[in-house]
Formats: sequence, structure tokens, C-alpha cells
Amino acid sequence: MITENIIGYELSSLSSKQIFAFDPGSGEPLPEAFSPATGEEVDMALEKAIVSWRIYRHIDSVQKTLFLSAIADGIENLGDTLVKRIMQETGYTQARVLVERKRTCAQIRMYADIGSKNTWKEITNDEAQPQRAPSPRPDLLKMNVAIGPVIVFAASNFPLAYSTAGGDTISALAAGCPVIVKAHESHLGTNALVAEVIMHAAKATGMPDGVFSSLNGNRIETGQQLVMHPLTAAVGFTGSLKGGRALFDLGNQREKPIPVFAEMGSVNPVFLLPEKVTADAKKISSMLVDSITNSAGQFCTKPGILVAIWNEATRELSEFMMEALAKIPSSTMLNENITQNFERGLDLVKAVPKVTLMDIQLSPVEKKIHPVLATVDADIYLAHPQLHQEIFGPYSLMVLCRDLSQMKEVANSLEGQLTATIHATENEMDMARELTEILIEKAGRIIFNGVPTGVEVMESMTHGGPYPATTDSRFTAVGYHAIRRWLRPVTFQNFPNALIPSDFNLK
Amino acid sequence: MITENIIGYELSSLSSKQIFAFDPGSGEPLPEAFSPATGEEVDMALEKAIVSWRIYRHIDSVQKTLFLSAIADGIENLGDTLVKRIMQETGYTQARVLVERKRTCAQIRMYADIGSKNTWKEITNDEAQPQRAPSPRPDLLKMNVAIGPVIVFAASNFPLAYSTAGGDTISALAAGCPVIVKAHESHLGTNALVAEVIMHAAKATGMPDGVFSSLNGNRIETGQQLVMHPLTAAVGFTGSLKGGRALFDLGNQREKPIPVFAEMGSVNPVFLLPEKVTADAKKISSMLVDSITNSAGQFCTKPGILVAIWNEATRELSEFMMEALAKIPSSTMLNENITQNFERGLDLVKAVPKVTLMDIQLSPVEKKIHPVLATVDADIYLAHPQLHQEIFGPYSLMVLCRDLSQMKEVANSLEGQLTATIHATENEMDMARELTEILIEKAGRIIFNGVPTGVEVMESMTHGGPYPATTDSRFTAVGYHAIRRWLRPVTFQNFPNALIPSDFNLK
Repeated sequence: MITENIIGYELSSLSSKQIFAFDPGSGEPLPEAFSPATGEEVDMALEKAIVSWRIYRHIDSVQKTLFLSAIADGIENLGDTLVKRIMQETGYTQARVLVERKRTCAQIRMYADIGSKNTWKEITNDEAQPQRAPSPRPDLLKMNVAIGPVIVFAASNFPLAYSTAGGDTISALAAGCPVIVKAHESHLGTNALVAEVIMHAAKATGMPDGVFSSLNGNRIETGQQLVMHPLTAAVGFTGSLKGGRALFDLGNQREKPIPVFAEMGSVNPVFLLPEKVTADAKKISSMLVDSITNSAGQFCTKPGILVAIWNEATRELSEFMMEALAKIPSSTMLNENITQNFERGLDLVKAVPKVTLMDIQLSPVEKKIHPVLATVDADIYLAHPQLHQEIFGPYSLMVLCRDLSQMKEVANSLEGQLTATIHATENEMDMARELTEILIEKAGRIIFNGVPTGVEVMESMTHGGPYPATTDSRFTAVGYHAIRRWLRPVTFQNFPNALIPSDFNLK
Repeated sequence: MITENIIGYELSSLSSKQIFAFDPGSGEPLPEAFSPATGEEVDMALEKAIVSWRIYRHIDSVQKTLFLSAIADGIENLGDTLVKRIMQETGYTQARVLVERKRTCAQIRMYADIGSKNTWKEITNDEAQPQRAPSPRPDLLKMNVAIGPVIVFAASNFPLAYSTAGGDTISALAAGCPVIVKAHESHLGTNALVAEVIMHAAKATGMPDGVFSSLNGNRIETGQQLVMHPLTAAVGFTGSLKGGRALFDLGNQREKPIPVFAEMGSVNPVFLLPEKVTADAKKISSMLVDSITNSAGQFCTKPGILVAIWNEATRELSEFMMEALAKIPSSTMLNENITQNFERGLDLVKAVPKVTLMDIQLSPVEKKIHPVLATVDADIYLAHPQLHQEIFGPYSLMVLCRDLSQMKEVANSLEGQLTATIHATENEMDMARELTEILIEKAGRIIFNGVPTGVEVMESMTHGGPYPATTDSRFTAVGYHAIRRWLRPVTFQNFPNALIPSDFNLK
């Protein structure tokens, strides 16, 4: 395993320090000593990135498709080595890791396919009108071009899909941007394995040196240097609100501001209309329990609040859920930090009077978390902003409303969300329509009679939403249009064909 | 003429203060006393905007087209009243005003047409695959929706095309966003006339109260309140780097940041390759002199630096230009502030040793500006960042290079630009290609053998560029895609048809 920083086709370990990944199950460090990136190494990576950009952005699309496909192949070829390392660094089950690997490789191949089609260039041409009076109309040819070197911060909860070769990296590479990945300190080994795959894929398909780099290190310090570097053109981040906002602020405070797209927190509210609860309590309970506890609730789309009318059917639903949650074993969280934040979050909730924690008080297992379902009256919820915050992990808060009107009040009180969900029968369409009208203002994706977890990698996916879900609701982090974050339009006016770069594949 | 603030369908003048527009020719205030907006009036406009947004975003596209078309008709119907007022408030000639009016109305009708076609919604649908294993694939329907109330800051130099009913306002209205215009203090009367047209057009076509408001006032104070208001969703600004950056910073420092698209400064470099200069000196001189002095150089796309090889042909070109510039009469600038900034800018240039001011030293006319052409060796230019700054007005700096290699060095030294221009013969394509490669990184539009002034309102136009030309190079302020600044995608997952708002005009 490469423990150095990967800077283009070079390995570098200038620092005298060493950092280690941890096994979250045991809390013990893993044996490999990784070299954290120094300021000099940040410079080296960006100098290489800018040089490679000037070649890479013109690389033939067929060639680029080969590069991206080789990354997907390489990840699959790592086989058990990669799967085991991820399990070791995340505490995830093998099944969970295999699903993520499949999704990651499908995502890479989708961008490889997009790259080959060039539709993302959105080429348009308004032809000249030489006879127009009083002045002739020029020929205008417009197309998207790569914005420049992109920094990607790997996510803690998706060591593959939102990390080294995840959506941010691959969409940026497909756009023609070189990428520098800041490895997540929780899975340095996973990062090293995947980064090596990308380096080899780039070499094998003739990509320029510097099109990809991978840096290890202390998140805050190295991250700041990367965002503030004058050659950095854009940033992609998936993580906490605190971390994302800090990077967003840095990016905007630069002398030359750059776009920082951060995908951050979300409580993903689920609205449960009463007839639907009465009709389907058992089914809804089973869907929600799965969605709340899958991967120990460590999804950005985990349903964090469940909004229902307080009646007999809802009481039954909560009992079904309790019963099912009791059978879920305690889980190891991704890292110590996440475990502590989960406990701190629960303490804040417990400090609010009249919140009932329907805690599954089995014998507590050391270093493990068991799922928690809490309930609160909507009046209390509306009066306590601390109950509106995301708690990352297997927790959800059931908010009990007097009536539909209070349910709308809860909807109106929401901050920006990645998703919102409505459960309703055919008879409840009027209320569902009113809720939809409110939720369109709040969320990037609205789900009907389903759960928010499970983000399909499709053209029509929106994985984004108003702040604080993301820093810019006009973009998505998943699916075809995620590439738009790394593109800017350029118009060529009256350009002779001989002068237009041949790789633009026009008309 | 309405001298109050227009807040939806109400007129309001809560302030005890009065503000006046000025005749820039005489420096005297014009008679009408306008009421500056108070903080309370800012609140009123935004409260109305948010309520109207919830109706307006669902307005049938045919109806919205009628609204926008009625604005264009209304502006034309103002006839001489409007034309004379603009001339009075700007010092522009009648011919200049008529061109801008034509362009503004064409722009409004283009967005009316886009609105009726709904292509900006970019609706896509990935259909469900219920049989997919291990889990069924849901139906995903994605479309763009209006981001919310938009604040538009009117520009000083385009009282129509980038102001009250200019590109920012109309693209936001076409997107389904209510608009609050902050009138430019230099043309309060022009704003009042056009704002009244919009108010009447909105009423006549059944638009909700609050879809449009117009506020007068002290730019800094009122502007800050508008950008910081919690109901504001986005901001459009055209003006100085200082003003744009201040609003951009405010927008990002909010608890909930919002996108501030500011179109700011640009020096619009023109690269003159030697064979082309030898062949076409006279023609190039005439094009450049027109472009530098049109509207007293008060265009954001005015060519502010001319980069050439120092040889006999360039000397001839500069002599042609001098001769032509000498015949251009002195001009009244848009306002006192711009006149002073022009003089201050020239003082900074004069303070650099070895800059030659080829000033047309006719007898100076009070309150008027005559065109200035300066020359400097590229060595001096490269060493003095103050020479790289935009001077708004009829000024251009000829940068004289030793050779083509130094010309590339000058290109590489440039900041972000709205435009860059190359003049070359067929024999000079290799050098032109190398320059293009550099300029793609710097500018939103690259012009071949032409001038940067004259921004066609077409789908393929890019009026934008890397900072400091704009605050976000991924968008354009002119043309079809300007609407993207005010849109965000929303995905509906497994939504029954009955629940999808009927105005979405799907499939």
C-alpha cells in the first residue's frame, strides 16, 4: 500500500510526521504509517495540476472515457483487498461495502459515457447575419470548458462513492478538470488503494502527469491550504455543516473567490398523513426502521424527523417501530468523533423538557451505538431550534401534531433539506399537494410513499438543496448535472474553424 | 411621474428625506423629489415578494409571456417621454438611447418567448424499473423551479438594458421569481417611468401583487438591507468591482448565504498580431476608436488595453488612432462620480514612469472628458499592477511588446475578463491559437478580428467570465442561459401525476 502522498506520478513524503487510520471497532490504530501532506506538497500538487489541465482539457473524449473506465475496472480488480480494508476502516458490513462499490463503479462508467458524448459541452451556435442592419450580426459559438483544478474532500460515510473516485472526483475529471483529493483521515488505506488505481489508470491511458493527486493529512490545516491556494479553481466537499461552511467561507474570502460546493447536513423530514398511517402502519414502520438504521444511520439522507398526527394509528406505528428497532443490533460508528457527536446530539435533545426518548435500553455495548427514536409534541418542537438539528447516526425524532394545520406549520419551520418525504393515500392528495408546495421551497428531492435513503445515480436525480443542505441550491452533487459545478461557458465570436480547438467536436 | 417607491401595487413614501436625479451635463439636480426607501419599505417589498412568489411561480406560461410582452410594449409606448428623460439623466445621445431601447425590448421579448417554451425547466424523467434487483428503481422526474425573490441593482451605464426592465429583472421574472429593483441614483426618473410600466403590465395581465417592486435610495444603505434580508433568495448586480464585491461578501456572510451574481470590471484586452496590423492598420484603428469612445467609453466591454508588437506598423496604427481620436468631441460622463474616478484613474497611470499619454490636448471643456490613449512598454506594464486596472470611460492603454513571446506573457498576466480579442491574418493562426489557449482561461468571450463592444442577446452569448469580471464564471448575465442564475433543480420521486403541479407542462 502506498503510504506517501501521490502527486501526479510521483510519491512524496516530506513530512517527518506520521498519521494512522483507525479500526473503529477496536479503536486501535491500523499498522500503516501514512505521510501527511506539507504545504510544499500542496504547492507541488497544484503546480502539476495547472500544467496538466492545459493538456487534459483537450484530451480526446474517447481517450478520457478509457481513463475513467480503467478506474472502475481497477477498483473492481482490487477485489477483497479493497473490500476488507473498507470494512476495517469503517465498521461497515461486507454487504454494505459491496453495494457501495457497485454504485461507485456504475457512477464512474456513467461519467465515462457522458464524457464520450460531449453533451455536457452544451455547444450552441448562432450563425452570422452579415446583412443585418444597421450592423451585421456576428457568428457566436458557445461551449462549456473545464473551470480548472478541483479540490475534493473525501466524505467519512462513503469511502468510495463520495471519496477518492467518488462523484465529485469523477464528474470533475469528466469535465476536463484535474483533481486533488484530500483523503479522509478515517480511511487513509482505502484512499491509498483507490488513489493508486487512479494513478495507474491515468498512466496506462496516457493522461498528463498531475491530472490526479492524493494528499493525506490533518483535515483543517491541509484543507485550508488547498482551498486558499491561488491555483485552485473550485472545491467539492461532503461532510458536516461546520466543516463545509468553514471551507465555503474560506473560498469566498479569497482575493479571487472560488465556488465551494459543500453538501452538508439535512434532517430529511418525513410527513405521515393520517389515513396512510392507519392503512399501512406496519409497512411504513418497516421502511422507516430500515432507512433510519441502514449503515448505522450514517447517510446524509437518513430520515431524521417523522411528522405525524397524534392519534391511535400513529401510536401503533411508533410501537411497530420500537419493536423493530429493538431487534437491530448495536453498531460501530465510522469513527470516534461521530460516536461522540451522536452522544452530544442526544444530550441536547434530552435537555429539552417533554421529549420522550424511546430508547432501546438493552445492555449498552462499549463503543457501539444503538438506535434511538424520540417523540415530541409539535408545540415543543417548534419552540426548540436545537430539536431541528441533524444528529448523524441511527436516530429519528417523531414530531406529533394536533392537526394538519400544525403539520404545515412544522413544514414551514424547516431549514433547507436534501430531501423531504410525504406518505399519503389517494384521498389525502389535497393535503399532500399543500405540503408539496411548501416542501418545493425547502428540499432538492421530494419522495412520495418511500424513504429518502437510496440516491439513484441518474440524470433526473437532485442531490442538493437550499442551505444548509448545500452551499448552492442551483447544483446537484449526484447525477448527470453534477458536472456543471466544474464548467464555465465560453463564447467564440467570428472564430475561423482553424482556430477552434479540434477537440471541441463541433456540430 | 411616480416619485414614491413602488411596492407591488402600492406607492409608498415613508421617509421624510428626498433625493434627486442630476443632469450630468449641467451638474444641476432635476426637479422631481424622489422618496428614498426606508428599512420598513424594504421589509414591505420582500414580504409582498414572498407571498407573490407562491402564486407567480405557478402562473401559466402563456400568461407570463403576456406580462413580459406588455412590459416591452409599455416601454415603447412611453415614446419620447422616456427617451428624453434618459438623455437628460445620462448625457447619452438620442441615437444611443434608441439603440438601447430597441435592444432592451428585443431582450424582453426573447425571455417572453423562452417563458412560453418552458425549455428552461430542463425537465427530464428517468422512468421506474419495478423489476430491478435487488431493489426496484424509482421514477425520477426533475425540473428547474424559481429560486425565490431576486434583488436587482440597476447599472449606471445601461439605464434600460441592465436596469429596471433589463436582463437581470426579465430573466428572473421569466424564471418565476419576483423582483425588487434598487433604482440607480443617477436615473431615478428613468427608473420611475419603466417601473410604472412594469406595475401596469403586471396588473393588466393578472400577476400577483408584489411580483415587482422598485425602491429608490442611497445605494449602500438600502442595498445592504436588501441583500441581508432573510427573504431574499438571490441578487443580480452590474457595476463596479468595489460595489459588486461588497454585495457578494454580504451575501456570503449571511447566516443562510445566497448567490450574488455581480458583473463587474474588465479591461477587455485586444491582441494585435503584427501582420494583421501591417495589413489593416486603418481599418483596425477605426474599429478600435469607435469601440473605445462609443457612449464615452462607458461600456463594460470597452477595450481597455491594446497589446501589439512595437514596430513601424504599430506606430502607424497609433497615429491613425490619434488622428481619429482628435476628432471625437469631449463627452459628458454619466455622473460626477464616474468623471472623478476617470480622472483619478488617469492620475494613477500618470504616476507610473515611462507611460506616455497620447492625450488629445484640445482646450479642456468643463465637466467633459476627452478620450485618452496611452502607451507603455510591456516590461513596465508587467511590473505595474495599477496599469492593469479598468478605467471606466474613453481610455485605452497600448502595451508594446518586444516579440510574440512577451505578448503571451502579457496574456498570462491578465486577470479574469468579460472578453478578449485577437486580430490576426491567416498566416498568424499558430500564434492566434496559442493566445486563444491562454485567453480561454481568462475570458468569457473571445472575439476574432472584431471589437468586444456590442453584446448580442443570443443563446450563444456569454457575458461573464472569471473573477473579477464576475463573481461566478459559471453563469452569463446576457442571453438565454442568464435565467439559470435564478433556478434550482427539484426531483420528484415516485410522484403520482395528480400531485405534480399542473403548470409544469410535462412531457
